[in-house]
Amino acid sequence: MRGTHPLRQRPIGVFDSGVGGLTVVRQLRRLLPAEDLIYLGDTARVPYGTKSPATVERFACEDALFLARQQVKAIVVACNTASALALATLEEKFALPVFGVIAPGAHLAAKQSRLGRIGVIGTSSTIRSGAYARAIHRERAAARVFATACPLLVPLVEEGWLHEPVTLDVLRRYLAPLQRARIDTLVLGCTHYPLLKPAIRKVTGEDVRLIDSAQSCAAHVRDRLGALELLAKGRRRAGVIQPYVTDEPDRFRAAARRFLRVPAREPLHVELPALPSGFGPAQWK
Amino acid sequence: MRGTHPLRQRPIGVFDSGVGGLTVVRQLRRLLPAEDLIYLGDTARVPYGTKSPATVERFACEDALFLARQQVKAIVVACNTASALALATLEEKFALPVFGVIAPGAHLAAKQSRLGRIGVIGTSSTIRSGAYARAIHRERAAARVFATACPLLVPLVEEGWLHEPVTLDVLRRYLAPLQRARIDTLVLGCTHYPLLKPAIRKVTGEDVRLIDSAQSCAAHVRDRLGALELLAKGRRRAGVIQPYVTDEPDRFRAAARRFLRVPAREPLHVELPALPSGFGPAQWK
Repeated sequence: MRGTHPLRQRPIGVFDSGVGGLTVVRQLRRLLPAEDLIYLGDTARVPYGTKSPATVERFACEDALFLARQQVKAIVVACNTASALALATLEEKFALPVFGVIAPGAHLAAKQSRLGRIGVIGTSSTIRSGAYARAIHRERAAARVFATACPLLVPLVEEGWLHEPVTLDVLRRYLAPLQRARIDTLVLGCTHYPLLKPAIRKVTGEDVRLIDSAQSCAAHVRDRLGALELLAKGRRRAGVIQPYVTDEPDRFRAAARRFLRVPAREPLHVELPALPSGFGPAQWK
Repeated sequence: MRGTHPLRQRPIGVFDSGVGGLTVVRQLRRLLPAEDLIYLGDTARVPYGTKSPATVERFACEDALFLARQQVKAIVVACNTASALALATLEEKFALPVFGVIAPGAHLAAKQSRLGRIGVIGTSSTIRSGAYARAIHRERAAARVFATACPLLVPLVEEGWLHEPVTLDVLRRYLAPLQRARIDTLVLGCTHYPLLKPAIRKVTGEDVRLIDSAQSCAAHVRDRLGALELLAKGRRRAGVIQPYVTDEPDRFRAAARRFLRVPAREPLHVELPALPSGFGPAQWK
């Protein structure tokens, strides 16, 4: 089979506003050890989760354009905010498979919730978009979705306070309305949140099922690339991970160790291309 | 005197990474009620406080270039991070008076501290730069400066949690080493922090003097523009405040109410000019 599809051997492109998307890269590496991965973290403009739909859409198109020019075979939007606000536009503008983190997490939550009472936590922009509720209702129309923006969780993770009493207090406050609504499933709708799983588990107890959007996204990418015959089959060497960042690489290195926890090449600094005027549908591949 | 200096009637330009600099605008409005003020908040790329010196310097030059093209008579860098990392570059590149927030706050702290034991709190990039310690030592060589980065405070202010128990816990944790060092003066080295004054006061007690960098910056701007004969004297109408933002203006409005608390025009959306190639010293005025 090898070589029957020239795209197969190309890397998978992954982007995020910063370092959080490395949790998706980590899951991709686990499920697809032979794939080469190019990661773009837009660390000069991070975060996206507090910004408007128009701005996030523009940033996401610039990120995807950079990846498309690196000759990737598919684009993974490893950022819940960009998935919520820009996925449809990216699908229209780029003639490549584009995968987001929201549909796979919503699918799993809809399938696994016993009572159909599903909580979603994420950034302000993700929650405000209503993207998770729409995606869950597409799969399970009768589900009740309770969504809460948790803007302090990303800064807490980036500060490294994963198990502090303060972090538990903040989580208790954010999760209280979801607990009162008797959710049985909670979607961690931000790529930073997997690092808070032990703390979230302490607050919710064992009865609430946690859906990790990074895990479900990686499984979805594996399944879809398999169906499209785009997996780098037949390769014996381990895939490489090449990160690019828009801010200086120094601070990224330390964060990468905590979020990625598998070996990667040295991060490179990149200036993103401006969108060409008349940036039209499906012209970039 | 009116009309003897044509620059007098131009607006003062003020920029910040986001909304925090509005605390400086508020103090400018209080001290200089007749001045027109143009405010630029780079809300699409906020925050600057987590980003590298090279990136903050580039963003600050783009912000200042936008203001210079609006024909301002002076530029106020109402952002501690940009003041710490980019003030020298801005002074070199722009043929206009440029004022930062750090020197005035450092001056006041050096003057008012009884024992010369001075604490400084700010963003990671501000503290890492060492700019406050250098500025304080220029004024008082024997001072002991104890500086701590407080990355969670800006998100807490933006979440509106100004008086919550969680906020007090976070402050206690950040301020504990400064209290152990027996500081008698604390510089609030970030334009968001004035909103936390009551909470900080609760943690430090009354014996520690708080230096508000927004207040000291505004007083400095008034004094310097007076000395340069650049104040809009003789004007009877109240000055206007025109905000510009790089993200959509919607979210800015709500924040502006909390930070500014005086009337302003409707915020306008702007795309910042890219720096011209060969962007050289002192060419913009």
